[in-house]
Amino acid sequence: MLADQHLLRIPGPSPIPPSVQRAMNQTMIGHRGKETKDLIQRIKPRLKPIFGTEQDVLIVSGSGTAGLETAVVNTVKPGDEVLVIVTGAFGDRFVKICQAYDVAVQRYDVEWGAAFDPAYIKTYLKDHPNIKAVFATYCETSTGILNPIQELCTIVHENSNALVIVDGVSCVGGVDTEVDAWGIDVLVTGSQKAMMLPAGLTFITVSEEAWKIIEQNKQARFYLDLRKYRKSLADDSTPFTPALSLLFGLDQVLNLVEEEGLQNVYTRHELMKKMTRSAFKAMGIPLLTADDAASPTVTAIRPNDFAAEDLRKVMKQEFNLSVAGGQQHLQGKIFRIGHMGYCSPADVLQIIGIVEISLRKIGKQIELGQGIRAAQEVYLQQGVLA
Amino acid sequence: MLADQHLLRIPGPSPIPPSVQRAMNQTMIGHRGKETKDLIQRIKPRLKPIFGTEQDVLIVSGSGTAGLETAVVNTVKPGDEVLVIVTGAFGDRFVKICQAYDVAVQRYDVEWGAAFDPAYIKTYLKDHPNIKAVFATYCETSTGILNPIQELCTIVHENSNALVIVDGVSCVGGVDTEVDAWGIDVLVTGSQKAMMLPAGLTFITVSEEAWKIIEQNKQARFYLDLRKYRKSLADDSTPFTPALSLLFGLDQVLNLVEEEGLQNVYTRHELMKKMTRSAFKAMGIPLLTADDAASPTVTAIRPNDFAAEDLRKVMKQEFNLSVAGGQQHLQGKIFRIGHMGYCSPADVLQIIGIVEISLRKIGKQIELGQGIRAAQEVYLQQGVLA
Repeated sequence: MLADQHLLRIPGPSPIPPSVQRAMNQTMIGHRGKETKDLIQRIKPRLKPIFGTEQDVLIVSGSGTAGLETAVVNTVKPGDEVLVIVTGAFGDRFVKICQAYDVAVQRYDVEWGAAFDPAYIKTYLKDHPNIKAVFATYCETSTGILNPIQELCTIVHENSNALVIVDGVSCVGGVDTEVDAWGIDVLVTGSQKAMMLPAGLTFITVSEEAWKIIEQNKQARFYLDLRKYRKSLADDSTPFTPALSLLFGLDQVLNLVEEEGLQNVYTRHELMKKMTRSAFKAMGIPLLTADDAASPTVTAIRPNDFAAEDLRKVMKQEFNLSVAGGQQHLQGKIFRIGHMGYCSPADVLQIIGIVEISLRKIGKQIELGQGIRAAQEVYLQQGVLA
Repeated sequence: MLADQHLLRIPGPSPIPPSVQRAMNQTMIGHRGKETKDLIQRIKPRLKPIFGTEQDVLIVSGSGTAGLETAVVNTVKPGDEVLVIVTGAFGDRFVKICQAYDVAVQRYDVEWGAAFDPAYIKTYLKDHPNIKAVFATYCETSTGILNPIQELCTIVHENSNALVIVDGVSCVGGVDTEVDAWGIDVLVTGSQKAMMLPAGLTFITVSEEAWKIIEQNKQARFYLDLRKYRKSLADDSTPFTPALSLLFGLDQVLNLVEEEGLQNVYTRHELMKKMTRSAFKAMGIPLLTADDAASPTVTAIRPNDFAAEDLRKVMKQEFNLSVAGGQQHLQGKIFRIGHMGYCSPADVLQIIGIVEISLRKIGKQIELGQGIRAAQEVYLQQGVLA
């Protein structure tokens, strides 16, 4: 096998564009000097369109989970009643963080592979008027579901004073996200998915309503205290030493997004989703999720006549193609293909081409080229990509 | 289109493996210090298997053409009679270099797209006993021909005292090359093709017979004087400042080749050739070269019902996939796909997938997935790649 070729198609971390890699390699600078101030000044306004907000996007050095914990400790305190919508492993993580802080968590468990039902929330909120916050996952990485966040916001705000707190880690940057227009109170994402960076940064937006709660919240916190980040960012700075090389990279990521055009980035992700799904449908291999609830960034496949792990093993051994397996009770039952960030329709063709060969290698009698053809047809129907 | 994705599939320069890129980025060192000596000592023995020689492989900083000129100025002088076998643009280059030095050049012109006929050389040498050297091209990049160098060596050595001087620029490293066993007197290659490096180094092997000529040759030369390189290399050094970052990269290239195994590298190239050719045959699109004369590193396609340039344009615009056009009289008539060095069967699937879509975009009614399927079938017939 060709040495040093790594086809990284797990649902994050995702591959780093070469120009971003180069940007991250630049000479280290002092974190309190003018160069860092200039860098933050350059980044600040250009992050906003990705989140669909006029607010400053706060940047905390840490992984996505640090971002989720930031959302929790700033908005709620022990004893507060919250609802966590659990559509997979990452909804579950919100529950665990809340429990660690003695927050009174109610779970709304949805079968893994389905999106939540906003109508359920409406009823729930009427029956539970003291709910302080509703936690939801935008893209549930463990299942490839894209949840209806816009509808959730409408229903929560019409029926309660609860905040809507959203984990957008595995899709923001690749999927249209309108924090202000939809009314997301706190949105968290990470750097290592559609944002095309290594893990190590988490991005957080906060609504005016959420700030009122955050300012008053008695929950103890220090490093993750969003008030510190807002105050520093107003001065183009950070409260603690930032992960500077990732900021160098982020500056270049923003160049790439602007070069392609943000709407084109979203169109590309939508196209990659459709190509991938059409390919598996053509091959007669079941998808875990329904079309109308599928994420543009990750596709979960639930085979019924071969072992997902056998396929993953062959693809890794022969092509160094990594896709993810299933988590928790879906372990061994599904595999998940990441098509986010630095990934193109041409890469989807390559992935499907490898899947087809590897299926034959594990003994499944599919017709070669059939999945590829379906993906190609989707591409051609789409017209010219900008 | 995804910004910063460049699918570079011209027949060289070829893509650089990430670990080689990183190696080249290491801190600059002095070219006369111990570290450089150690580096050359590490490289020297490990280059030999790639060339199939026990002789030291000389390294000149310069492009492939500098290597071709090195071969000329060291072995012949004004007035010497030489035969240049011209199977394409790079055979032609040998002619031009010889002419620039007033060498008495005879051409043996072969139709572009065919390999030369060793039997012709036998007759020719009998009729021209004063020929001092026969120049040939191993892989003719302009047509994708792999010429029969082993047979050439046998015939030349059995029928004359002429040296066999070979341009191996676009294949050595990807194709079995046995300098000692076949009796190649001077073999030249460049760094930017199957050697997985940027352009800037040229590698030259010299037989004992050739050294006898070179030592005595009155032709004026300085930078390209191979005697200087042999003398320095014996002491793990170079006569002039070497292109050090490329040597850093070469050290890592050798690691990658050893990790994969040299025979596996050759098998991979052979497989990529067969996959590519099968795909175009399945699509009913003519290849320029016959199967038994085709190079494992580059494939030339000669379409008869669409414009090569239209296809190249769409592939570049929509996928940033670069393949080469034709040279000289084949300009606009063929296109050439490089599958050498840092290129895998998975990459061939991607290229063919893009070719199929792009053919439809320019109005050719091919059946989607057909070329891919043929390539996949070749892969599956090949069994497991090591």
